[in-house]
Amino acid sequence: MPTPPPDTQHPLAPLDRFTIELPSWGFADTGTRFGKFFQDAAASTLDEKLHDAGLVHRLTGCCPRVAVHVLWDFDTHLPPPQAATAAVSSAESHGIQIGSINPNLFQDQRYKLGSFCSPDPKAREAAVEHTLYCVDLMAATGSRTLSLWLADGTNYPGQDNLYRRKHRLVEGLQTVADAMRERVDGGRMLIEYKPFEPGFYHTDLADWGMAAGVAASIGGMQHHDVKVLVDTGHHLPGCNIEHLVAFMLDEDLLGGFHFNDRKYADDDITLGSIDPYQVFRIFDQIAQYEHDTGQPAAIEYMIDQSHNLKPKIEAMVQTVIEAQKQYLRAHLVDRDALASAQHRGDIVAAEQCLKRAFELDVTDLLTRWRTARGLAPDPLTHLRESGEIERLGKERAAARGERGEVRGGSYA
Amino acid sequence: MPTPPPDTQHPLAPLDRFTIELPSWGFADTGTRFGKFFQDAAASTLDEKLHDAGLVHRLTGCCPRVAVHVLWDFDTHLPPPQAATAAVSSAESHGIQIGSINPNLFQDQRYKLGSFCSPDPKAREAAVEHTLYCVDLMAATGSRTLSLWLADGTNYPGQDNLYRRKHRLVEGLQTVADAMRERVDGGRMLIEYKPFEPGFYHTDLADWGMAAGVAASIGGMQHHDVKVLVDTGHHLPGCNIEHLVAFMLDEDLLGGFHFNDRKYADDDITLGSIDPYQVFRIFDQIAQYEHDTGQPAAIEYMIDQSHNLKPKIEAMVQTVIEAQKQYLRAHLVDRDALASAQHRGDIVAAEQCLKRAFELDVTDLLTRWRTARGLAPDPLTHLRESGEIERLGKERAAARGERGEVRGGSYA
Amino acid sequence: MPTPPPDTQHPLAPLDRFTIELPSWGFADTGTRFGKFFQDAAASTLDEKLHDAGLVHRLTGCCPRVAVHVLWDFDTHLPPPQAATAAVSSAESHGIQIGSINPNLFQDQRYKLGSFCSPDPKAREAAVEHTLYCVDLMAATGSRTLSLWLADGTNYPGQDNLYRRKHRLVEGLQTVADAMRERVDGGRMLIEYKPFEPGFYHTDLADWGMAAGVAASIGGMQHHDVKVLVDTGHHLPGCNIEHLVAFMLDEDLLGGFHFNDRKYADDDITLGSIDPYQVFRIFDQIAQYEHDTGQPAAIEYMIDQSHNLKPKIEAMVQTVIEAQKQYLRAHLVDRDALASAQHRGDIVAAEQCLKRAFELDVTDLLTRWRTARGLAPDPLTHLRESGEIERLGKERAAARGERGEVRGGSYA
Amino acid sequence: MPTPPPDTQHPLAPLDRFTIELPSWGFADTGTRFGKFFQDAAASTLDEKLHDAGLVHRLTGCCPRVAVHVLWDFDTHLPPPQAATAAVSSAESHGIQIGSINPNLFQDQRYKLGSFCSPDPKAREAAVEHTLYCVDLMAATGSRTLSLWLADGTNYPGQDNLYRRKHRLVEGLQTVADAMRERVDGGRMLIEYKPFEPGFYHTDLADWGMAAGVAASIGGMQHHDVKVLVDTGHHLPGCNIEHLVAFMLDEDLLGGFHFNDRKYADDDITLGSIDPYQVFRIFDQIAQYEHDTGQPAAIEYMIDQSHNLKPKIEAMVQTVIEAQKQYLRAHLVDRDALASAQHRGDIVAAEQCLKRAFELDVTDLLTRWRTARGLAPDPLTHLRESGEIERLGKERAAARGERGEVRGGSYA
Repeated sequence: MPTPPPDTQHPLAPLDRFTIELPSWGFADTGTRFGKFFQDAAASTLDEKLHDAGLVHRLTGCCPRVAVHVLWDFDTHLPPPQAATAAVSSAESHGIQIGSINPNLFQDQRYKLGSFCSPDPKAREAAVEHTLYCVDLMAATGSRTLSLWLADGTNYPGQDNLYRRKHRLVEGLQTVADAMRERVDGGRMLIEYKPFEPGFYHTDLADWGMAAGVAASIGGMQHHDVKVLVDTGHHLPGCNIEHLVAFMLDEDLLGGFHFNDRKYADDDITLGSIDPYQVFRIFDQIAQYEHDTGQPAAIEYMIDQSHNLKPKIEAMVQTVIEAQKQYLRAHLVDRDALASAQHRGDIVAAEQCLKRAFELDVTDLLTRWRTARGLAPDPLTHLRESGEIERLGKERAAARGERGEVRGGSYA
Repeated sequence: MPTPPPDTQHPLAPLDRFTIELPSWGFADTGTRFGKFFQDAAASTLDEKLHDAGLVHRLTGCCPRVAVHVLWDFDTHLPPPQAATAAVSSAESHGIQIGSINPNLFQDQRYKLGSFCSPDPKAREAAVEHTLYCVDLMAATGSRTLSLWLADGTNYPGQDNLYRRKHRLVEGLQTVADAMRERVDGGRMLIEYKPFEPGFYHTDLADWGMAAGVAASIGGMQHHDVKVLVDTGHHLPGCNIEHLVAFMLDEDLLGGFHFNDRKYADDDITLGSIDPYQVFRIFDQIAQYEHDTGQPAAIEYMIDQSHNLKPKIEAMVQTVIEAQKQYLRAHLVDRDALASAQHRGDIVAAEQCLKRAFELDVTDLLTRWRTARGLAPDPLTHLRESGEIERLGKERAAARGERGEVRGGSYA
Repeated sequence: MPTPPPDTQHPLAPLDRFTIELPSWGFADTGTRFGKFFQDAAASTLDEKLHDAGLVHRLTGCCPRVAVHVLWDFDTHLPPPQAATAAVSSAESHGIQIGSINPNLFQDQRYKLGSFCSPDPKAREAAVEHTLYCVDLMAATGSRTLSLWLADGTNYPGQDNLYRRKHRLVEGLQTVADAMRERVDGGRMLIEYKPFEPGFYHTDLADWGMAAGVAASIGGMQHHDVKVLVDTGHHLPGCNIEHLVAFMLDEDLLGGFHFNDRKYADDDITLGSIDPYQVFRIFDQIAQYEHDTGQPAAIEYMIDQSHNLKPKIEAMVQTVIEAQKQYLRAHLVDRDALASAQHRGDIVAAEQCLKRAFELDVTDLLTRWRTARGLAPDPLTHLRESGEIERLGKERAAARGERGEVRGGSYA
Repeated sequence: MPTPPPDTQHPLAPLDRFTIELPSWGFADTGTRFGKFFQDAAASTLDEKLHDAGLVHRLTGCCPRVAVHVLWDFDTHLPPPQAATAAVSSAESHGIQIGSINPNLFQDQRYKLGSFCSPDPKAREAAVEHTLYCVDLMAATGSRTLSLWLADGTNYPGQDNLYRRKHRLVEGLQTVADAMRERVDGGRMLIEYKPFEPGFYHTDLADWGMAAGVAASIGGMQHHDVKVLVDTGHHLPGCNIEHLVAFMLDEDLLGGFHFNDRKYADDDITLGSIDPYQVFRIFDQIAQYEHDTGQPAAIEYMIDQSHNLKPKIEAMVQTVIEAQKQYLRAHLVDRDALASAQHRGDIVAAEQCLKRAFELDVTDLLTRWRTARGLAPDPLTHLRESGEIERLGKERAAARGERGEVRGGSYA
């Protein structure tokens, strides 16, 4: 008697283990190089960001952690424990936890030629020092994840020696990895890659292979603590992202995701807004991996979007809901039928297995899952009808007025 | 007896009619969405920008005009004649003239959903009013060119009705064109296109065909006064730009260029820094057009680069020199030999005609041209050795200190 | 009282006017430059192709016409009336009609340097003559559509003069258009564009703007009989196809579609297999146009796919079903709610209007439509369970054996 | 006193160690999926191919080896020693040697779903067996290089299980690597990657990271005998190839190149015909590596182009000459000045170091090198004026006539 596909009996089980980390910077005003369009309800302070994250978690039930951005969210003049105190207690008060720690290695003027890769030893020292500070923040906040994106790159052929930059990078990250191993129990470093922007000729960590190579160079394979982070928008046109995901899962290299969508470059718009089937296919590879190996993929799911037009909280809820929907559908693929079609070389039948799951109306299933947790069946509508964003807008506009805040300035 | 290729006897003749307009904003600090790296010598005021442009013209001998950006360069609270006065006399004092007038239709908060295309009638009114102000500035400054780049677009499918946006655009531009025809003798509007950024789903003028279509809709074909502007960085990957150039020249649609280079998206780096052969091939099509028709192409050559790492004046001189070099080489192609090889279907010989010209060492020719005008043979080296940039850096840093200027803020 | 969205009351009405033309060559063996994988059931003769097209029409109820490819489907040694006779009666016997006539202007050795654009006058004459033959076939078969794809282009910079090629093209097509206007009542020419392949440096009709420009040059605007054909796979990476569609519809330039999907280049795989949301968005622009203008878009929908791995008939049914599904969904968008959200600048609500329609489960609606026409509710399953493909495979393999046919040779 | 840049004194030394392997299939008729344009002088037999390769070597002095393609060049029904005999003696008679051995794992009908990765065990067995045969040919011909390109991939999402395909691939290649280590002294396997075509959804070895990962899995790192092969045309749009080259050189992963150029997809046109500066930049990274480490990069340079319009021998000579020119220029970069500018962060000066070398007129240097070897100073002109191609054309056309050969059939 054939085994029923595993998820039929407990179709909601996968959702129970699917949590998504929210980015603190995703609640603040951001924009393009051509400017920002400001929103009254945008968060300015860390407490406001954590409040908004807490709100998204209360609405969706699956976002218990917030990624923090050290330069924007912490007073880095304080020692890590003190700097962390306010964040931790604010997070707690909003019903969430501090998630991954994100250093900022691009905004300071000294990083003009790079951070870890810069030919300027002072820039490299600053990068190492700042990242070590972040390691200490991990310990101080209880975070287990250091999430590294480097803007390092060059704008012109010849600008710098690519070999030396690579060696400097490995040397700096080795110091960080050593410290993390010493100071943070169960700490884990995720290395992000990106083909271009802000570097317009080359980026030091341009693709997954380079991120994986550097991870290996600093002992990530032996210690199982340095992995690659896939930002869905950080690929060249046409790149088959789900294939990279599968390859890295199979090699135990994949550590996490930054979710967003794009049509052209790194557009940072909401997940699935351009290519929802691709989102599904990425989750399908993860579900297939879990099915084939019988164990859950140890992946951290995070959002990294920079919606400069949509209201921030709405945009965040949209992405969370889209992720849940496609994740659930991917776990409803009939894996036995799929394997059988693949085995027979029946391309049409195999494809239909995926398409059928992708087109499943999972509204009822999601409603069941939400209702069981006391959540509104449709968190986005609930949020929009609650008037909460308007209320925050008024409150924050007034507070800005009182502070005499001039809006503009740094990205996020 | 075969006719010698036309340019052999007067190889420098084409250079005499090749002038390049400099962008005022190219001397100011600019950056990416991730921030700006500030330069002491960057220009802040219009007078500083015109000074720098004048310097580039004195060095290169071929940059007599400066494109101005109305929002950044003029006090738009003044009526156009008054607003223009300072600019005109400053330009004169630096030995140059005001060139194309560039409206700003993206920075104001009201343009969140677009300018001419916005669903908000107030935004559209503001766009028309600002552009009419620019038309009056044309008259007041003696400029004959209105150079239009719209950031109009949407970030998400469904965000707006593409048909209505198109109709609004044509309606608004018709008003502008009518005014220009009435108020500016010999006025000319150049319409730029761009596939994406800052719009991440669609851009209202996404390609040359749309720019040409809109130009035709507002009477550009009958009046011969609305043309398309090609920014070399505004194309999808792989696009054959020289082919567009040829097609538009043949249809009398091409009005001008914004020069820069790119490897990925709209990277706005210096011309020919990534693909010098493409620069040559663009000029080759223009030279071929002039050869075939016996008349000069009525094209305005302008620079639009945003070198946030290279020193601004150096970067500008680099691009000017590169443009002159490739332009000269393109005019040294042996057109008779090329035509003969093309006629025979001798692909290798035809290609070699181009490659041979592209690889010509034209240093001596350029030196002759420069020396005859009292210019340094190598303007870039001359500039770098003059200490002028260091001097400007000190002077401007001090002036900024006195003004108590906080750096940052708007793009450019 | 608000008007209900128009399609709610008669949701199936749009399907009644949605017909899709099948390509005869889509039933034959095709492949990549690396070879073909042969299928027993692939059609060899025109009668077999028309049989298969008839089968798809009987299964789906919406494919009453077949595009024919003159070189592969007709004995061009016969005068057009005689050549057409067998085709017309075979089509009739299979319950379908001859649709668009497709010349072949790339396979003959004389087209090495192009057809209409070739520097070789004999190649150009051959191209004109062959296309005039196709015009006569229109008259002889009752077809009203001449569908032109030119493989014309060059592989190397300098290979040919782009201006002369353009002039030759316009001259040749003018002859064809004149003949069509004289000989075919209500005849219509569709001009396809493609950025590359088989030309690897430039393609003479590289984008929609060039196709539209040439259409205008040969009187297409005045006579309303030369339009642009959009092959969904013929665009550079990132191109916003639905935007082009909207722009051309608004300018009365769009004549038809070739449906297929792609992830990389012109992959010619089944519609919606990679990006189903894009298919929906294209139909959404068409539905919006019809909604805004109150009249149907005069578009011919055709399939042009080259599934060298999937069974041909199955692949065709898949594409037809996908097209119907997305077309129906696009007509179920709540246009009033969408317009209202767009008017308010409510990006999230506007986007949700589209997403909601895209995610509608339209199975029941399609079943209703099919049942009312005596069709199986699920044509693909019906086909697969019918054993028809296996039967055809055996029959055709046997016939090939008897003919002693060696498989291979020309593309399609 | 500053050290002079190393290559000034012996500028031609690098050329002495720069040899390029020619592909036997590059002398045969090839085409696109739309057909082939036949050339009279195209080689049909292995002897003809080796003749042509010998001719290119005699003209250029730097092409002593020919890559052979087992399916097209050998009678695989014979045992390897016998199959090799004719090839070896023919090569010898033409003054060249057999270079890399290239299996064919895509043309046979059984490879429809892949070769090493196929779900069909018979296809996998055939792939292993054929590749083992190639290993034996290495031994029999004296070749030390097995050059592997797999067309393995899928056309549709879901078509096959990506994990299982990866495992099958590693298993099969392990068998091959083990055999090579046993049977071929100093044997080396080069693994090529390609993002797409003929697979239109995914390719099993899609990027350098995957090729490197598989190389590591089969012991390539320990044994130093499995490396990655970079085909310059096998990258997604915008990819910074020279960066990959540098990264891999630094990790001891790079084994060789397939040279060609492209503008769009895998266009396989002659090297530097579209982007000569990129060719220079690739060689610049190699020269920098050699400069920094003081040892030559152990890289095999091969050509893999498929010029279906240019005369084959001319096209080959063009590519060889272009490679030599850019290679020489890259070795003339003033590395000390470059390092100094990079150290100072002087972007403009650093870039100029590269540009200056790229623009060097090396005609005299190359003439010196060629004259010293008794070669014509300009091999391409020499070839074109020799009448050799016309002579071969007549001879081979006649031979084809005698053989009654029908042209067409398999790719190459």
